[in-house]
Amino acid sequence: MSGGERGQQAYGLGRILALSDGVFAFSLTLLVVSLSVPTATSNSTLAAQLADEAPTFFSYIISFVAVASIWYGHHESFKYIRRYDGRLIALNFGSLLLIAFLPFPTAVLGRNQQDSLAAVLYALTLAVSNLLFAATWWHASHGRRLVRSDLSPQLVRLRFYRTLGGTFVFMLSIPVALWQPIAAEIVWSVFLVAIYVVFRGSPPSQHRENH
Amino acid sequence: MSGGERGQQAYGLGRILALSDGVFAFSLTLLVVSLSVPTATSNSTLAAQLADEAPTFFSYIISFVAVASIWYGHHESFKYIRRYDGRLIALNFGSLLLIAFLPFPTAVLGRNQQDSLAAVLYALTLAVSNLLFAATWWHASHGRRLVRSDLSPQLVRLRFYRTLGGTFVFMLSIPVALWQPIAAEIVWSVFLVAIYVVFRGSPPSQHRENH
Amino acid sequence: MSGGERGQQAYGLGRILALSDGVFAFSLTLLVVSLSVPTATSNSTLAAQLADEAPTFFSYIISFVAVASIWYGHHESFKYIRRYDGRLIALNFGSLLLIAFLPFPTAVLGRNQQDSLAAVLYALTLAVSNLLFAATWWHASHGRRLVRSDLSPQLVRLRFYRTLGGTFVFMLSIPVALWQPIAAEIVWSVFLVAIYVVFRGSPPSQHRENH
Amino acid sequence: MSGGERGQQAYGLGRILALSDGVFAFSLTLLVVSLSVPTATSNSTLAAQLADEAPTFFSYIISFVAVASIWYGHHESFKYIRRYDGRLIALNFGSLLLIAFLPFPTAVLGRNQQDSLAAVLYALTLAVSNLLFAATWWHASHGRRLVRSDLSPQLVRLRFYRTLGGTFVFMLSIPVALWQPIAAEIVWSVFLVAIYVVFRGSPPSQHRENH
Repeated sequence: MSGGERGQQAYGLGRILALSDGVFAFSLTLLVVSLSVPTATSNSTLAAQLADEAPTFFSYIISFVAVASIWYGHHESFKYIRRYDGRLIALNFGSLLLIAFLPFPTAVLGRNQQDSLAAVLYALTLAVSNLLFAATWWHASHGRRLVRSDLSPQLVRLRFYRTLGGTFVFMLSIPVALWQPIAAEIVWSVFLVAIYVVFRGSPPSQHRENH
Repeated sequence: MSGGERGQQAYGLGRILALSDGVFAFSLTLLVVSLSVPTATSNSTLAAQLADEAPTFFSYIISFVAVASIWYGHHESFKYIRRYDGRLIALNFGSLLLIAFLPFPTAVLGRNQQDSLAAVLYALTLAVSNLLFAATWWHASHGRRLVRSDLSPQLVRLRFYRTLGGTFVFMLSIPVALWQPIAAEIVWSVFLVAIYVVFRGSPPSQHRENH
Repeated sequence: MSGGERGQQAYGLGRILALSDGVFAFSLTLLVVSLSVPTATSNSTLAAQLADEAPTFFSYIISFVAVASIWYGHHESFKYIRRYDGRLIALNFGSLLLIAFLPFPTAVLGRNQQDSLAAVLYALTLAVSNLLFAATWWHASHGRRLVRSDLSPQLVRLRFYRTLGGTFVFMLSIPVALWQPIAAEIVWSVFLVAIYVVFRGSPPSQHRENH
Repeated sequence: MSGGERGQQAYGLGRILALSDGVFAFSLTLLVVSLSVPTATSNSTLAAQLADEAPTFFSYIISFVAVASIWYGHHESFKYIRRYDGRLIALNFGSLLLIAFLPFPTAVLGRNQQDSLAAVLYALTLAVSNLLFAATWWHASHGRRLVRSDLSPQLVRLRFYRTLGGTFVFMLSIPVALWQPIAAEIVWSVFLVAIYVVFRGSPPSQHRENH
């Protein structure tokens, strides 16, 4: 493999990541648009209006944490990816489509908190998004297609099951949402707090280029 | 050519790509704003309201895939571009103007699905955007102005015809849209699925810098 | 530590910073959405409408300067961070949540200028955001966990007290806001002008890689 | 100067540019939000509604080209900047404040095309933005404070007068706007077309790092 080929791959992966980070960052910020701005004349009225928006605040925070955790999985997976092909780009775009779409089910859920359909739409968006990221990792790691040939089977499996984990939790929350939307939101919250604990646990294993 | 000149070109091209990727990422995410958020009181009402928005969902997905495919073409073309000049920047901004504008015709089409004018405006935006990207590649590759002097004529032609392909399909869909707007949407969908097949087919040819 | 590990850390920190800068940039730009666009028929009417929006302009500018100063602190802190772990990412996301949320309290404050609750919500958002950035630096620098082992104690303390400074000013402005919202806005303005003076004072100490 | 100092400066300038490009890209894309989406029942009605929006389309295009030309000036100036200090960051944020603000005067102008005040607000935003970018270059280049010490006086002056050029044109258009708003728009259009001609003329002088 020549230096020129390596450089083109660095360019190629670099732009895929730049575009992905742009979509993640914009989706994180656009979520705030789902909150409607109250105009009040007295303190108590503004307080009441903000209290009415509590469900929207709650879905805002769940969505922010969900996107953050998907970004973290994306970040950990692409750390090991060394090459790209057309299918990697297509799978990555597929999951970004759902990340970019998320502000919509978030707003729908915020304004229809008691509605099973709103909770199902929300869970489905995050389940499919996670599934496509799991498929991205499967495609990249299977037969060491786009990763280093000496990547350990343990690591390949760990990353696959972690990205698949979100899919299962959000899928399993769909029957819960059909039964009771608020119970589904509790399932998501518990899951995302659990992810945060895993987040915290990961050790500082690497060092930045001295600069 | 001195190392300093090479470095300035890396800075120059790097920022052109950073700005372009930013506009692509925002346009992809801003498309979601075209969807209006329903508020319902019972499940059936919310389902009905979401079903009413089906045309908007459909144009959202077509637009997302169209921008993704234009980004892919941009990515493949700039892989070979080594220098820039003022005209490259001007042509690139011209196509970005239309990419940034796309959320508007997408929303117009979503709310006026039966309207030939909406479909024509949409097709024209994507046709001109593709045309300007084809012109960007022509400008860069003609006489090897901004690419490596040993770039093969086959590759130069292949990239030119691929970027021009979108222009032709969206131009040809205009008379179809005048006849029947929904038929034009079928043409676009078939074209974008065909692009996806091409996407998938491209082999993993390059490697990332070892890091 | 191998070169590969260093490279992975450069990738890891690079993407954390790319995502953070994306959220900062969008939040800075999305603030403008809080301004509502008047439509008038005569000059005097437009002038009157723009004058009515003066409080919103004022909170727009305060928020822009506040985000800019938080970005500057983030920038100065991450200059010394060489490694990352899960907790750094979690703390960083926590503060980004509040940066992404800021357009909401900004708009609430702009439309409810005389309302103590609006000013308290605003101050609280910026206080907690600053607090989480201070916690990020504490986590990274304590025991030189994620910074160079030879970083001077003076520098570690200086950066900690600077990031903590914003927390104290915005916390202390809460009782002021409860007493008189407009007085709190004066406190913030004076604080942000003071930060600007500090900004200006920092010397040009470093050089870009020759390119 | 040590390698570590150079690296920190590369980090510092890199993030300043990443944040600036983010604000530029988002402002370019957010401009589209100033266009309101019509819903029509027959072709003629949609055509009439789109025709009514012609002034807004016009200010959208002028703003896009104005931001693109300011970005180009920013790009050309920072090509020569090797170091940064607090005042550079403060001046850069000052101009970004006006770039991020631009979607507001653009929308005001689009909906109040005949109104001198709307045109004056618009011209003032672009004049001050250009002025602050000229001040940024003056600060960086005066006494070769933040640029290479051997930068030619011709280049320093050329870049200063170019960035100052926009300030003068937009300032001079203010009395024109007070007399006749539409005449001011013609002045801006002619100026931006003239800039495009300059854009095109700049030769491909540099090369990307071989990758």
